Amino acid sequence: MDDTSRDEGINTIRILVVTDCHLGYMEKDEVRRHDSFQASEEICSIAEKNQAKFVLLGGDLFHRNKPSRATLVKAIEILRRYCLNDQLVQFQVVSDQTVNFANLFGHVNYEDPHFNVGLPVFSIHGNHDDPAGVDNLSAVDILSACNLVNYFGKMDLGGSGVGQIAVHPILIRKGLTSVALYGLGNIRDERLNRMFQTPHAVQWMRPEAREGCQVSDWFNILVLHQNRVKTNPKNAINEHFLPRFLDFIVWGHEHECLVDPQEVPGMGFHITQPGSSVATSLIESESKQKHLLLLEIKGNQYRPTKIPLNSVRPFEYTEVVLKDEPDIDPNDHSSILEHLDKVVKKLIERSSQKANNGSSVKLPLVRVKVDYSGFMTINPQRFGQKYVGKVANPQDILIFSKSSKKFGKEAKFDDSERLRPEELNQQNIEALVAESNLKMEVLPVSDLDVALHNFVNKDEKMAFYSCVQYNLEGTRSKIACDSDLVKFEEDDIILKVGECLEVRIFNSFT
Amino acid sequence: MDDTSRDEGINTIRILVVTDCHLGYMEKDEVRRHDSFQASEEICSIAEKNQAKFVLLGGDLFHRNKPSRATLVKAIEILRRYCLNDQLVQFQVVSDQTVNFANLFGHVNYEDPHFNVGLPVFSIHGNHDDPAGVDNLSAVDILSACNLVNYFGKMDLGGSGVGQIAVHPILIRKGLTSVALYGLGNIRDERLNRMFQTPHAVQWMRPEAREGCQVSDWFNILVLHQNRVKTNPKNAINEHFLPRFLDFIVWGHEHECLVDPQEVPGMGFHITQPGSSVATSLIESESKQKHLLLLEIKGNQYRPTKIPLNSVRPFEYTEVVLKDEPDIDPNDHSSILEHLDKVVKKLIERSSQKANNGSSVKLPLVRVKVDYSGFMTINPQRFGQKYVGKVANPQDILIFSKSSKKFGKEAKFDDSERLRPEELNQQNIEALVAESNLKMEVLPVSDLDVALHNFVNKDEKMAFYSCVQYNLEGTRSKIACDSDLVKFEEDDIILKVGECLEVRIFNSFT
Repeated sequence: MDDTSRDEGINTIRILVVTDCHLGYMEKDEVRRHDSFQASEEICSIAEKNQAKFVLLGGDLFHRNKPSRATLVKAIEILRRYCLNDQLVQFQVVSDQTVNFANLFGHVNYEDPHFNVGLPVFSIHGNHDDPAGVDNLSAVDILSACNLVNYFGKMDLGGSGVGQIAVHPILIRKGLTSVALYGLGNIRDERLNRMFQTPHAVQWMRPEAREGCQVSDWFNILVLHQNRVKTNPKNAINEHFLPRFLDFIVWGHEHECLVDPQEVPGMGFHITQPGSSVATSLIESESKQKHLLLLEIKGNQYRPTKIPLNSVRPFEYTEVVLKDEPDIDPNDHSSILEHLDKVVKKLIERSSQKANNGSSVKLPLVRVKVDYSGFMTINPQRFGQKYVGKVANPQDILIFSKSSKKFGKEAKFDDSERLRPEELNQQNIEALVAESNLKMEVLPVSDLDVALHNFVNKDEKMAFYSCVQYNLEGTRSKIACDSDLVKFEEDDIILKVGECLEVRIFNSFT
Repeated sequence: MDDTSRDEGINTIRILVVTDCHLGYMEKDEVRRHDSFQASEEICSIAEKNQAKFVLLGGDLFHRNKPSRATLVKAIEILRRYCLNDQLVQFQVVSDQTVNFANLFGHVNYEDPHFNVGLPVFSIHGNHDDPAGVDNLSAVDILSACNLVNYFGKMDLGGSGVGQIAVHPILIRKGLTSVALYGLGNIRDERLNRMFQTPHAVQWMRPEAREGCQVSDWFNILVLHQNRVKTNPKNAINEHFLPRFLDFIVWGHEHECLVDPQEVPGMGFHITQPGSSVATSLIESESKQKHLLLLEIKGNQYRPTKIPLNSVRPFEYTEVVLKDEPDIDPNDHSSILEHLDKVVKKLIERSSQKANNGSSVKLPLVRVKVDYSGFMTINPQRFGQKYVGKVANPQDILIFSKSSKKFGKEAKFDDSERLRPEELNQQNIEALVAESNLKMEVLPVSDLDVALHNFVNKDEKMAFYSCVQYNLEGTRSKIACDSDLVKFEEDDIILKVGECLEVRIFNSFT
């Protein structure tokens, strides 16, 4: 190393940026159970090889809110093997660490005298591993207690209402370079959306100017884990909500790899969206090559380098519109099967050709989206039987769609929506209410949505009970209070109850 | 320290012996949620104060097979705070550590160069935190992966049948003292019982004699976690099953504190039963003062010192036989209430007097066992309401029993049985089968018992499926095999199926 590069090294912070590892995804599938762990192993070895100073995770390190013992043990093993070593950590955290890291120990992991941390990992939580329960703990808190991960960006949202949060950056110094790292662990999109539109609800804490160091000397990074795709603007975070002082944004949650930093016009910052390291939806955008981002920061400048992930299971995707295929006879079931067989074989072949170039010998994931308008559907399980041992997902190679309005945009949106893995369809309650022709008189549908989500995704057994209690009490106290002011007839109570509901819906949505 | 005591120190191994901490017990109870953690904190600080060289745990460190995030985090925090420090570990593990510690790292935790372990903890699993699932992992494996606990005594039992196990000791040396530490994590009592009665099924591996060191120089300790109380001898481990070369036995699982080593006549070893550090059953034997054992070993000699646990919640117990009380009128409900009130008040008073001596200010646990033969029962919840804020368990102060044959022994046994917390009553399936007048033709009741246990206690969703599959396949292959040898009529198949069942029951019980 000559003097120039050594000088460069002293002032350069090299960060490996990764998101959505979904450890434990498909852990019960015989073929795919190791995928998420192998990708994470590769990520760690890439960090090592590229001498990253630290790893920055954008949430959803775990696939499940309550990871299995096996997943926890494997996660700990990987982190322990790669993060504990004799490497010297060459940067300092100069902010108030007790504010940044809200665990019992209150310091960055490599400063703990009883651990040999050589590769620090900083992580926010995602929607899959978000804090829950009485103690508001995330699975990431377990890794934080073990001193293997620096968990940050956990906000105290308080009770109901819009609430207020203050985002305190981790201030990192290396030589002449100063990085302010802001983290915002996943918050329900509707809620965060509302907060961003409420004055002063989100406070961005800026480092103070000090002697010989101006506020503008800080390179400001934000890592967040939210919907970015705007099918429903209320249910996603608009990039223009974010403050202009930011320089660089790491967007977690969206699984499509759009790792090259994109400029947001008029905002002055760039966004990288590394995407997941394991495909959790068999859709086109997850079939693209997965990458990580190596981000080198020196002063106010940065250099992004994308690094391919090679351990990812190959995934081939295509779409077929049955009525456009000349070799298919709508009255001949076997001609459909034959055609689809050809398509699948071609995909497998394509995958094995790629494999010859690389080193991967994994069974590929294969997905054919079949527009079957005007045709009978076929049984995907039976179709897949002959591909057992040839593809990783014989049971769901085929997926059928009927809407044939496939003119670009609309279909794309349809797919992008499905990018978020195993999310609960929160329209369910609304649909159920509409279907059953119910008139909701006390409970707002939105509250039931939240309760259903918490009940299913977070095992909060009291979710519905709390939801009912909260709304009953709200209604009761409002009516009691009103009846103190103006006397009204008992018959009016139903009317009053309705009014209360409207007020609560209004309060929660505006 | 003078020369003699220093000399003593060099050759003395000081071990703090603890069992059944049941971390997370009552974690959702507003009053008692911290009890198990506070006891464990005290245990660790006792280890520190007494300069124990290591802590030996006899199983059931966790109360639940799948501890909550909060319990895991608290357990990790306690261990991290007390076990990681700058103390020098002054003993060596000279056995094959990859055999002793079956995790990925395969060494005793204080030898890991990336951790500063000053107080090693060695633990077997109990029946509450036993290994389960495809990967056969215990909650203790999580602590082992974190390098906070040296988990040993996990046996590979193989599939069905009696099986065979080899118990490899951890060989510990300190100066001239050599300890062979044998660990036997909990195995279902019926199974272990059978193994002990099958020649060569349990192999005790002895250290080899080496130059200047005879086999007899080793001080042999066994730690196990099994039923000891012999209501049903098939369902407990007889002390006489254990090999005579052992010097000292740590018996986990039984919650009554019988910490003073008891000699087993004719066997040449002593047994300590430290009991739980938190009362999980409100029975007389758990109301006694809880203790730990400090075991100092020098050569072939040992000195046991019992140390009281002071953080344990006070617990007062008494029994009342209503018909023996002169101030109660069977026809006057309020006279019963008044009498019981007096009894409870007296217990609370007794507890607060003890508290004045010590430092405890915790609300006491209070339990009155009421023999109500010839009387109407009363509602324990309603009775307890006035004791909210005065006792820790207002909802279950009273427990009613009817059998009035209370002449010592029998009643004692009844209680001892209930010492094992939240165990599944395995008679359920048998009762169910008998009640429903079912004739079991393929499935042995004992297999269904095991399946039920695994389904409920270990969340093994496939437990019943596997049980059915195993027995179906066994039956099928036996019949197929038999019909190859001797041709028989189709009508005989039902007979054959019955024979198969009998053979399997015979094999599993003898």
